[in-house]
Amino acid sequence: MEYYQLNQTNLITYLQSLPKAQQIFSSFDDLDVQEINDGNMNYAFVVSNKLDPNQSVFVKQAPPYIKVLGEEWPLTRQRMTAEINALKYQSSVCPEMVPEVYYQSEVLSVLIMQNLNNHAILREELIHGRYFPRLAENVSTFLAETLFYSSDFALSSADKKAMISKSTNQDMCQITEDFVFTYPFEHHEMNDYNPALLQSVIDSIQKSPDVRAHVAQMKYIFMNKPEALLHGDFHTSSVMVNEQQTFVIDPEFSFVGPMGFDVGALIANLYLNYFSHAHKPSPESVKYSQWILQTIDDLWCKFENKFLSLWSEHEQSAENTFMGKDLTGDTHQNFRHVFLKQVLSDTIGFAACKMIRRILGVAKVADLMQFEDQNLRAELETQALKMATTMLVNRQSYTSITNVNKLAKDVSSV
Amino acid sequence: MEYYQLNQTNLITYLQSLPKAQQIFSSFDDLDVQEINDGNMNYAFVVSNKLDPNQSVFVKQAPPYIKVLGEEWPLTRQRMTAEINALKYQSSVCPEMVPEVYYQSEVLSVLIMQNLNNHAILREELIHGRYFPRLAENVSTFLAETLFYSSDFALSSADKKAMISKSTNQDMCQITEDFVFTYPFEHHEMNDYNPALLQSVIDSIQKSPDVRAHVAQMKYIFMNKPEALLHGDFHTSSVMVNEQQTFVIDPEFSFVGPMGFDVGALIANLYLNYFSHAHKPSPESVKYSQWILQTIDDLWCKFENKFLSLWSEHEQSAENTFMGKDLTGDTHQNFRHVFLKQVLSDTIGFAACKMIRRILGVAKVADLMQFEDQNLRAELETQALKMATTMLVNRQSYTSITNVNKLAKDVSSV
Repeated sequence: MEYYQLNQTNLITYLQSLPKAQQIFSSFDDLDVQEINDGNMNYAFVVSNKLDPNQSVFVKQAPPYIKVLGEEWPLTRQRMTAEINALKYQSSVCPEMVPEVYYQSEVLSVLIMQNLNNHAILREELIHGRYFPRLAENVSTFLAETLFYSSDFALSSADKKAMISKSTNQDMCQITEDFVFTYPFEHHEMNDYNPALLQSVIDSIQKSPDVRAHVAQMKYIFMNKPEALLHGDFHTSSVMVNEQQTFVIDPEFSFVGPMGFDVGALIANLYLNYFSHAHKPSPESVKYSQWILQTIDDLWCKFENKFLSLWSEHEQSAENTFMGKDLTGDTHQNFRHVFLKQVLSDTIGFAACKMIRRILGVAKVADLMQFEDQNLRAELETQALKMATTMLVNRQSYTSITNVNKLAKDVSSV
Repeated sequence: MEYYQLNQTNLITYLQSLPKAQQIFSSFDDLDVQEINDGNMNYAFVVSNKLDPNQSVFVKQAPPYIKVLGEEWPLTRQRMTAEINALKYQSSVCPEMVPEVYYQSEVLSVLIMQNLNNHAILREELIHGRYFPRLAENVSTFLAETLFYSSDFALSSADKKAMISKSTNQDMCQITEDFVFTYPFEHHEMNDYNPALLQSVIDSIQKSPDVRAHVAQMKYIFMNKPEALLHGDFHTSSVMVNEQQTFVIDPEFSFVGPMGFDVGALIANLYLNYFSHAHKPSPESVKYSQWILQTIDDLWCKFENKFLSLWSEHEQSAENTFMGKDLTGDTHQNFRHVFLKQVLSDTIGFAACKMIRRILGVAKVADLMQFEDQNLRAELETQALKMATTMLVNRQSYTSITNVNKLAKDVSSV
């Protein structure tokens, strides 16, 4: 079979050819095919049985180009291989937070998976001020488990190297290198500035050799630190939630990179959401913005504790440990804390880059774009940029996320 | 053709079958085959025409095991593929310092190359107190050129990733991970301590949670920083010299790793040589040990300057630079200096680990082993360990190599 593009016309015939789909659908006579248009890269469809909506699948296909830009913007289909690889790995360590994959084809670059029709995109929910008391608990579990079990602390050196080879995702890494770490920090035609944002604010980043050196260091770490198999694009639109459950979706940017990049991506998007609420004087908004900060604090602390627990449990049972025998009883523990401090510093640095690129670069977030008043938006953007710059240059000196939260409060109360 | 082992009997017939050897040797009737026994891993032969010693080649073959340990110690022949790959790369950027390769076969894991019969192993020369005024100049060129041109500053992101995939050398990396970064720092049966070395000195390393955490950080950097195509085992026995020329040989540990690992390996071995001279009161020894320190200083400073020059030249001509456009005129330069400071810190940390492993681990250096008096050797080893520990834990705070030299002087004059 060769690659061909699935569409509303041929999709049912394709599904009918798959034994797995025959198990899911009692009949193919009354299927409804709905194209989903909210992704930029890929085609997506929801197929449901009109007679029994519980019979339903989500179908995602990567064309050999960027969907929204068209065929003149080629992009290899390797991203779907990376997504398939990542989903397989993530569901092996954290199955309860990854949509079930029913069928996959690298030839067609297609995934047929669980339709999360009782869940909503986290970003939208946060914009609407809804609470998810289990969010930090669940997401920290996902991060700790996926990052620990693909690290050198859990894998043999040979297995780790094999994972790196298998998980290359060059095109998507290149997109991140350009659109997260390069273009937003120079004068680039792809950038998109709010007209009300002061030039002096933009210059305070793009024309500061100090800030630029820190950004370059983060880009270098992104490209030169294959610590763990990352999700690779872990913002609040890659998380789907309801009261009970949390799912992590769309790991098409997955590759073996620095742990702090995944943790930082989520924290960056939570801070951007924070600024969208914190400026409002209503008691509900004050309470909600405090909940966002508390969630960030919980997320980091729970992640750190879970990662440390997985690690020390592993060391108690493993024959060989990363740093060799502990001759004093506190040697392993000492290194574990030094290590997590470095992950915190990377997390803060990456979060800062991600916040800046969402304001100066081409890809915006709805959390800020919801405000049609350009001046109000510029005010919030300026706060976020100020916070991000401070985080970035001081990232090595934070000993806890609490002080970063304090910075958010200071910046937003000006 | 399948793999078979070359030996003194079949080697001439093999050479005769190669067109390249037919160009080198006017006749195969009077060839002398000499087996060279100073390597641990591989078989090596020098083949020369008795009638014209200028007609001569060096032949190296990797068996599927560790030569000195025998067939019960299997080791994949990937190391020869890595060596072939590294020699090809090194000679493309720095041909004057790499032996010429006449023929290579991945199937036989064999290399036929220039016989460096007018050159001596640097370690032996340094032990004998001989001067090489061009050493720092030459070796710094090799390091700057091989490390810069395989870095993200010279290669596109795609070419860099392709190089990483092509240059995996898992078995040899595992040897380094175990024998450089793990065994010497725990109680391991493979370790070999001088009986005169005080247990308290050994404990000051193996039982210090702080020192152990720093070693674990260096091991982690070794495994998680694919910056540039390294030589991978750049000690003073991997360098061959005469008055005019310097050659770098034996890159069988080559892989894409942290730049500081190559620079640090050489500096570590120079410091160990320093301690072997500095304790002698004779004016010649004092002068020689000062020359070693001056060579280390020159080596780092010349390396740094050359690397910076290659980088800034590249940025002036390249269409896209790593950190994007320089909008102030000093942005690129600022990052370059921040970057080199990090390489210095890695260099010092790796040098420290290498010094320690040569004393507590199984592989010793002749610079110290030449002293049959165990007490004298223990004294020098204690000095070197003290220096290495200090370097390791303070590696982030050195702003120049001069302060590391000062430490060497302080430690050896006690």
